[in-house]
Amino acid sequence: MEQLLWKHIQNVRTKSPLVHNITNYVVMNNTANALLAIGASPIMAHAHQEVEEMVNICQALVINIGTLDEYWTVSMIQAAKAANRLNKPWILDPVGAGATSYRDTTLEYLLSFRPTVIRGNASEILALAKLNQEKTKGVDSTAQSNDAVQAAQYLHKQFGSTVCISGETDIIVAEGKEMRLFNGNALMTKVTGLGCTATAIIGAFIAVTENVAEAAAAAISLLNIACELVAKNVEGPGSLQMHLLDKLYNLTQTEFDQHIKLSA
Amino acid sequence: MEQLLWKHIQNVRTKSPLVHNITNYVVMNNTANALLAIGASPIMAHAHQEVEEMVNICQALVINIGTLDEYWTVSMIQAAKAANRLNKPWILDPVGAGATSYRDTTLEYLLSFRPTVIRGNASEILALAKLNQEKTKGVDSTAQSNDAVQAAQYLHKQFGSTVCISGETDIIVAEGKEMRLFNGNALMTKVTGLGCTATAIIGAFIAVTENVAEAAAAAISLLNIACELVAKNVEGPGSLQMHLLDKLYNLTQTEFDQHIKLSA
Amino acid sequence: MEQLLWKHIQNVRTKSPLVHNITNYVVMNNTANALLAIGASPIMAHAHQEVEEMVNICQALVINIGTLDEYWTVSMIQAAKAANRLNKPWILDPVGAGATSYRDTTLEYLLSFRPTVIRGNASEILALAKLNQEKTKGVDSTAQSNDAVQAAQYLHKQFGSTVCISGETDIIVAEGKEMRLFNGNALMTKVTGLGCTATAIIGAFIAVTENVAEAAAAAISLLNIACELVAKNVEGPGSLQMHLLDKLYNLTQTEFDQHIKLSA
Repeated sequence: MEQLLWKHIQNVRTKSPLVHNITNYVVMNNTANALLAIGASPIMAHAHQEVEEMVNICQALVINIGTLDEYWTVSMIQAAKAANRLNKPWILDPVGAGATSYRDTTLEYLLSFRPTVIRGNASEILALAKLNQEKTKGVDSTAQSNDAVQAAQYLHKQFGSTVCISGETDIIVAEGKEMRLFNGNALMTKVTGLGCTATAIIGAFIAVTENVAEAAAAAISLLNIACELVAKNVEGPGSLQMHLLDKLYNLTQTEFDQHIKLSA
Repeated sequence: MEQLLWKHIQNVRTKSPLVHNITNYVVMNNTANALLAIGASPIMAHAHQEVEEMVNICQALVINIGTLDEYWTVSMIQAAKAANRLNKPWILDPVGAGATSYRDTTLEYLLSFRPTVIRGNASEILALAKLNQEKTKGVDSTAQSNDAVQAAQYLHKQFGSTVCISGETDIIVAEGKEMRLFNGNALMTKVTGLGCTATAIIGAFIAVTENVAEAAAAAISLLNIACELVAKNVEGPGSLQMHLLDKLYNLTQTEFDQHIKLSA
Repeated sequence: MEQLLWKHIQNVRTKSPLVHNITNYVVMNNTANALLAIGASPIMAHAHQEVEEMVNICQALVINIGTLDEYWTVSMIQAAKAANRLNKPWILDPVGAGATSYRDTTLEYLLSFRPTVIRGNASEILALAKLNQEKTKGVDSTAQSNDAVQAAQYLHKQFGSTVCISGETDIIVAEGKEMRLFNGNALMTKVTGLGCTATAIIGAFIAVTENVAEAAAAAISLLNIACELVAKNVEGPGSLQMHLLDKLYNLTQTEFDQHIKLSA
């Protein structure tokens, strides 16, 4: 498996997929830079008059609702609908799912266009699953980590999506399988938008990788190993954010092989 | 006083307050990262459909008009009104006050919701005070630095706000007192949005600190000492911006005690 | 010529021109910081109610359509129209020209306000020229690099603009002349928005420099030499982005003189 994931990383570097991002204001610069660093080509565009043309040009779509509003919500729906119709892979980052009813309504609509991948933290995945379950099947009663896996399985069943749960351990839930990834570093939680960066990078990988779960595993491992290596030599989150881009750009197969930890 | 301020810094690190930011595009990433680095939790959200819910969830609100437009102005007014009604602490950053009549009209409206803190440079504080004074009481005739203090006192009297004037010396004007803070470094003026960062950090401190003037003093001292320490070892503004996040994250009590300079 | 360009760089540092930017979300922070680092004063403002006042206050205008939408397009048109009327220098960055018909329509309108400078990569300059040529004069048939120069000459003739074509070699096309600049580093393509940064910096130079082609040459040389010097000592694009700001800030005449390569 590990060899396979490295192949996917090289594949992105070689094929340089065009990735269309409709994402939040906070992370636009970082996710564009992360995509460039791994070898992909980012496009950020959200105007209603051009969203569909952009989806058509690109090989994958990233939708992140972090700083949504009424205009952007329409952009996201137009794009998700187009991706679904054109059979282009797309990933949904349900930032703040469950925090407000506006987010939940928007997410419910977006889910209907069957995202190829959904990536969020445990509470976002739980909130997302709750939206789509009858209230009596609520997932509130059981323990959180199991819940998130259960919720992910539910989302997979409903929408066909591969679901990535981010946390100290990252879990990927797909058809009949569950992968656990153990790389990363606690300092990552002190840099804004590294979850959004994971989402964008997965976007690049699903653009050029047939197997979606492998694409997600390669993307997350790449980001987490890069952070892990960088975190050893930095004094705080500012340096982590900057050197991470360097490491995404120059990570070697040897570094990848020596550090990757997963159970598939 | 110095011991007290450090206690407030530790308090933010421990309590990790949720801070709602409606701020400008230029600084969103930096202010989110600064909030994370000091131990707070930033939320950026501006959709009319969710602004009030967000104010309700959070412990403090930051409003910064830097890149305002008609949509965002409504978001800001909704949020300020909600904060006022819910008695949540909020801070106003009147970026570019006096530059255009649109900014002034917007600020006049926002002031009516009685910000807990107002933070700006001398000319912004002056412009803000002028908005609310009868023209015959205009502050144009006297010297600038005294003017800003006088203007701040006026704003305090009118709106009950603690007013922070940023500059080489930072001045905090509150009920019956005036504090002067002497930390910082000239290179700070070459990094965009460090004023906005000060505002966001003060937002986190008023979320968990009863005494507003102390909260502001702790926040400004933290930022200015961090910049001062970092500026000694950097070659320019790029490095300052990055290492500042590291230092906000790892500043020790010893460093704080050895460098703080204020008169209260 | 080299001495002259350095004089222009010093001129920006001394006069600190106020530069109004209506630019894209991805690069706002970086271009604001780049403008500060070279000694200019950036303003970002796009509200319809204040755009004209801002153009009036500033000495130059930068318009970059990277993340345009219907609201921002109106802001850009208002600003370009005002700059044209007030005879203020302004620069157009036609990001993604040719990618969607919405971009092309917007650009066609903006061009009618006769930008002082147009800066883009070869394919953007080609797309821009095509918009304004009769279809039978299409530039599709000849080789790309010559095309871009031909397209630039065409744009110059039509709109009076000095045209900068970015690439491994940068080419400046103005009335009866063509300059070629040979500085820079391949790693620049892995940092998002360095083209946008070039545009913003040129904006600062045309604010205080009579000769537009020289202003553009000074700006581009400054950025490219700074990148070239920094790229020698960095491990990747993250470090390049950060140290670039340091170098823009502290580049010396000796460094400039020793590295500048151009043919005029």
